[in-house]
Amino acid sequence: MDDTDRLAHRFDGDSVSRALDLIGERWTMLILREAFFGVRRYGQFASNLGIPRPTLSNRLAKLVEYGLLDRIPYGGGPVRQDFEYRLTGAGLDLFPAIVVVMRWGDTYLAGPKGAPIVLTHESCGNLTHPRLTCDHCGEEIDAHNVRSDPGPSFVRPT
Amino acid sequence: MDDTDRLAHRFDGDSVSRALDLIGERWTMLILREAFFGVRRYGQFASNLGIPRPTLSNRLAKLVEYGLLDRIPYGGGPVRQDFEYRLTGAGLDLFPAIVVVMRWGDTYLAGPKGAPIVLTHESCGNLTHPRLTCDHCGEEIDAHNVRSDPGPSFVRPT
Repeated sequence: MDDTDRLAHRFDGDSVSRALDLIGERWTMLILREAFFGVRRYGQFASNLGIPRPTLSNRLAKLVEYGLLDRIPYGGGPVRQDFEYRLTGAGLDLFPAIVVVMRWGDTYLAGPKGAPIVLTHESCGNLTHPRLTCDHCGEEIDAHNVRSDPGPSFVRPT
Repeated sequence: MDDTDRLAHRFDGDSVSRALDLIGERWTMLILREAFFGVRRYGQFASNLGIPRPTLSNRLAKLVEYGLLDRIPYGGGPVRQDFEYRLTGAGLDLFPAIVVVMRWGDTYLAGPKGAPIVLTHESCGNLTHPRLTCDHCGEEIDAHNVRSDPGPSFVRPT
């Protein structure tokens, strides 16, 4: 069963509402952000985020259940087994969502001191301000130049 | 007071967690999605989303308070005044976040029938699958080719 299968059978409704049921929770998104930035161990999530441990345990279990993180044993002997949490393919593909939300926050919420996190595009070596572009023509996408239409699985709520 | 000012004084913490406090709520994001797709009136939000009216009233009020929607009188006489809800600049700039979450949902949650909504880039006239690209070199951004570093306002939680 691949990541898509693990996720697809859990949800009803359209893609956005299903995605939001999963990731539209503040701690969940912050845990994913830490994971993108290299955090893998329980204690490091806890100390970086200042998150209450019962909440952290709950959210990590959900992320594993939903197929965004894998829980993998490492080190330890036969008595004490430790685990680390690694992003799956589906989890890694949430990176653009985190970046876009971060960029919006930098613009509208960061205040005069500027962005708390800066990104470097390692392929070209420059500081980057990622933007959403059309995969056909390469121009930037915004609310003014895109039209939405019902797709093959469109269902209007009744 | 511009959109940035309206938002910036309301939040503590870093940009992502502040953005998520605002938009990381399922109904809020779905209301914004409807607004991007042209919905402006209370009754149309209610019927399109199947959202309970007290919830809709609460979320619309929050979106106005936070500066993402403007509540504007239209039509009506001196007795009965109706309002419509229009996206502000800050609200319009959330469009890429909605698109990215929608694209992720299409990939991992939409199931065999495909995407519920398709997007056309009106500038070039083609169906588009928007992607996140580096504003310097134009290449696609993903979790593997971007490095994050502390920015000017970085604060590690204690």
